[in-house]
Amino acid sequence: QGTRDHPPAQAALRDRLLSAVVACFKRHGAAAIDTPVLELRDTLIGKYGEGTKLIYELQDQGGELLALRYDLTVPFARYLAMNKITNMKRYHVGKVYRRDNPATTRGRYREFYQCDFDIAGQFDPMIPDAECLKIVHEILSDLQLGDFLIKVNHRQILNGVFAVCGVPESKFISACSTVDKLDKVPWEEVRSEMVGEKGLSPEAADRIGDYVQLHGGLDLIERLLQDPKLSQNKLAKEGLGDMKLLFEYLTLFGITGKISFDLSLARGLDYYTGVIFEAVLLQQEKEHGEEAVSVGSVAGGGRYDGLVGMFDPKGRKVPCVGVSIGIERIFSILEQRLEASEEKIRTTETQVLVASAQKKLLEERLKLISELWDAGIKAEMLYKKNPKLLNQLQYCEDTGIPLVAIVGEQELKDGVVKLRIVATREEVSVRRESLVEEIRIRTSQC
Amino acid sequence: QGTRDHPPAQAALRDRLLSAVVACFKRHGAAAIDTPVLELRDTLIGKYGEGTKLIYELQDQGGELLALRYDLTVPFARYLAMNKITNMKRYHVGKVYRRDNPATTRGRYREFYQCDFDIAGQFDPMIPDAECLKIVHEILSDLQLGDFLIKVNHRQILNGVFAVCGVPESKFISACSTVDKLDKVPWEEVRSEMVGEKGLSPEAADRIGDYVQLHGGLDLIERLLQDPKLSQNKLAKEGLGDMKLLFEYLTLFGITGKISFDLSLARGLDYYTGVIFEAVLLQQEKEHGEEAVSVGSVAGGGRYDGLVGMFDPKGRKVPCVGVSIGIERIFSILEQRLEASEEKIRTTETQVLVASAQKKLLEERLKLISELWDAGIKAEMLYKKNPKLLNQLQYCEDTGIPLVAIVGEQELKDGVVKLRIVATREEVSVRRESLVEEIRIRTSQC
Repeated sequence: QGTRDHPPAQAALRDRLLSAVVACFKRHGAAAIDTPVLELRDTLIGKYGEGTKLIYELQDQGGELLALRYDLTVPFARYLAMNKITNMKRYHVGKVYRRDNPATTRGRYREFYQCDFDIAGQFDPMIPDAECLKIVHEILSDLQLGDFLIKVNHRQILNGVFAVCGVPESKFISACSTVDKLDKVPWEEVRSEMVGEKGLSPEAADRIGDYVQLHGGLDLIERLLQDPKLSQNKLAKEGLGDMKLLFEYLTLFGITGKISFDLSLARGLDYYTGVIFEAVLLQQEKEHGEEAVSVGSVAGGGRYDGLVGMFDPKGRKVPCVGVSIGIERIFSILEQRLEASEEKIRTTETQVLVASAQKKLLEERLKLISELWDAGIKAEMLYKKNPKLLNQLQYCEDTGIPLVAIVGEQELKDGVVKLRIVATREEVSVRRESLVEEIRIRTSQC
Repeated sequence: QGTRDHPPAQAALRDRLLSAVVACFKRHGAAAIDTPVLELRDTLIGKYGEGTKLIYELQDQGGELLALRYDLTVPFARYLAMNKITNMKRYHVGKVYRRDNPATTRGRYREFYQCDFDIAGQFDPMIPDAECLKIVHEILSDLQLGDFLIKVNHRQILNGVFAVCGVPESKFISACSTVDKLDKVPWEEVRSEMVGEKGLSPEAADRIGDYVQLHGGLDLIERLLQDPKLSQNKLAKEGLGDMKLLFEYLTLFGITGKISFDLSLARGLDYYTGVIFEAVLLQQEKEHGEEAVSVGSVAGGGRYDGLVGMFDPKGRKVPCVGVSIGIERIFSILEQRLEASEEKIRTTETQVLVASAQKKLLEERLKLISELWDAGIKAEMLYKKNPKLLNQLQYCEDTGIPLVAIVGEQELKDGVVKLRIVATREEVSVRRESLVEEIRIRTSQC
C-alpha cells in the first residue's frame, strides 16, 4: 500500500520527466552523486521535526541499526561532513521512504522519487539562492505545466516578525509551524491555534497576522525595510537585506513575474536558516475536457547553513542552499493529461522489425537482425519460426515500430531487403549493404 | 557497512556504464518497468533457497510485513502474475539488498544495482534464450572488458545426468548445488561432499564426475545425444535437443566462439527450469601496470518457467528467460582501470564558464548566463561578486570546462563577447547574438 509498480507507459513517461529535470540540473553545472537508500538510524533521527515518526526502520537482525532515507538532503549533508567537502554543486535523483498515509490521487506515496539540486559552499550572498529559483522557473516552464507561482520568504524575516510581535525566542519554531498552515486554512483558524495551543497572547497573534498576510514584490521589501518596528530588528533587517539582493538578481534573470515575496510561507522542516521557497501550480481552467486538480506544491527548498555542522565532529559548518522538485506530483499531472489526450506513449524505441513473408526463413531473419544489432540499430523480430506477415505488421502498429525489413526468397537472391514504411505502407527495395544507413536516415526524423 | 556513497567521479562512471547496458536492452526492444524496493515479506520468502536468510526485513511498525527486494526477477514474476501479463520484454535497472558479508574489493556489496533483461511469453523454443546470450555477448564486447567466456548448460540435462547416475529425484536440487561449486574447488572436494554430506554412493558420484567435467561445443552435444545412457533419458534428451537448437541460433549470431557448453554449470537459484548461463572474464594479462583481479562472474541468467505461476492464484504459468548483468563487478574493474590510467573523468557537462576580467560586472554575468541557460547551453559562473580572472580560468582547468565567455566594459560597448578556448588559449570575439550558435558548434565536436 502506498508503493506501486510502474508499467512501461508510466516508466517511459517518468523517464522523460526525469530526463528533463536532470538536463536542467546539468545545464547548471551539477555533478551527480549517489548515496545508499539505507542510512544509520541515528543519522536520520531528530532532523525532520514531526516527520521523524514517519521514518521506516529496519529490523534489528544483528549489526547496525538501519533506516530507509526520508529525503536526499540529510544524506547529502552527512556525505559532505563525512568527506570533509566544503564546496560542491550536486544533483541527486533517488527514491525516498515515508510511513505516511498515502494520498495516491494527489501523487503522495510511501516510496517516491526526489530530484534534488544543492549548492554547498561559502559564497557571496544570494547568488546561489537566486540560481535555485532560476532552476525551478526553468523546469516548470520547460515542462509546460501551466501557470505557476514561486513563493519566497526568509526564516530570519519570520523570526524578526515573531520577535517584534512579542513572541519569546523559544516559541519561534512552534509559531513557524502554525504560520505554515496559512496556505490551507484561513487566518482565523491559525490565530486560534496560536492563542489556544501555542499560548501566544491575542495581541501578539493579531500583530503577527498583520505581517504574515502580506505578499508582494520589491515594493513590499522596501516598505518593510521602512517599517518602524521591523527596521529596528537585527534579524528582520538582515533577512530583508538578503531578500532585496535576491530580487535584484531575479530581476536580472527576468523571472520576477512568477515570484511572490510571501510572509506566510514558513516550510515545515526545522533545518532551514535563510531564504525558503515553494512553487505552486495555479488553478487550471477546465478546457479540452481536462479536469483541474489541485496538486499543491510542486517544488520547494531553501537555505540550510547549519545541517552539515550537525554531522561534523568539530561542528564545522558548510552553508548550503538547495531545491527539491516534486516529481511525483508533476508526474501525476502529466499522467492525467496523457490519459485525457488519448495520445499513446511509445514504451520502446525499436526502429525496425525484421520480418518475413514466407515460411522457413527464421535463419535468415536471425542473420539479418544480428547484423542490425551489431550496427547499433534497434531491432526486434517475432519469436516464432513461421510468423504470418499480417501478425508482424500488426505488432508494428501496436508498438509503434516505424519500419519493417522484410526478407524473402527473391530478395535474398537479389541481395536486397524490402523496407516497408509502416505509416505510409510504402515499400522500397534496399541493397543489403545500404540497409543500416537507410534505416538510420529514415528514423532520424522521428 | 557494505553500502557506500558514490562521489561524482564514480557516479559519472556508473552513469556511462548503465547507459551502455540500457542502450543494449533498448536495442533489443525492451520496455522499462519500475517496481518498489519494498515488497511484501511473503512474496520473497522461499524463492531463493539458501539466499532467503539474507533478506532485509523491515520492523513491524504496524501494517504489512515488508522486506527489501533481493533481486529483480521475483518482483518481475510477481508483477506479471498480478497484472495477468502473459507476454512482455522488459528491462529494469534498480538497487537490490542482501544481508551478505560484503567483499567490497571484489565488488560485492549489501546494496547494489542489478540490470535485468527478461522475455516473458510462450514462444517457439530457444529463440528468446539465444537473444539473451546475444545480449550478454554484445554488452561484454561493447564494454571492452577483455576476453570472456559464456558458459551454458541446461537444468534438464543436469537432472538427466543425475537420473542416469542413480541419484533419486528428491536429491536433484541438493546435488545441483554441490555441482555448482566446481568452478571454485576441484572435483575431489565436490565428490567427497556428494558422498559425505549428500549421501550419494561413491559409484554414483564417480559417474556424475565423468559427465560434469565435460565441456565443449556442438560436437559435445552430438556426442551426448549418442551417449548410451543419456540418450535413453527423457529429460536429458529434451535438454540436449534444446541445446542443439540453441547452438544453431548462436552460430547464426556468430557468437559461438565465446560460448562453452559446460556440464559443471549449475547456478545456485532454485527457480531455473531450462537453459542456464554465466559469463566469466578470462584472466587478464598484466600490462600497462594494470593489476589483474579475478572478479568471477559478470553476467548470468537462465530460463524459469515456473516462477510466475507461484504468484498466480490459479497457478497459470508464464515461461520466462532472462539475464542479469553484474554491473557492480564490471564497475569495480572499470574503476580500477580508470585509476591505473590516471585518465580524469569529467563529472559535469558544463560547456562554458561565464567570466569577467574586471570588477563590478556581476550583473552582466548574471544577464549573460541567464540568456545562455534559456538557450539550453550548459553554463556556470563563480558565485563571487568580483572573482579574479585567474581563478575563473583555473576553475575551467579543474573541472574540464572547454570554453570561457568573458564579458568586459569594452565588449559590452561593442556588443560582443570574448570567447576563450581553454585548451588552446585562443580568444575570439563573437557577436552577442551569435554566441549561442558559436558555443554549440565549438562543443559539438567534444
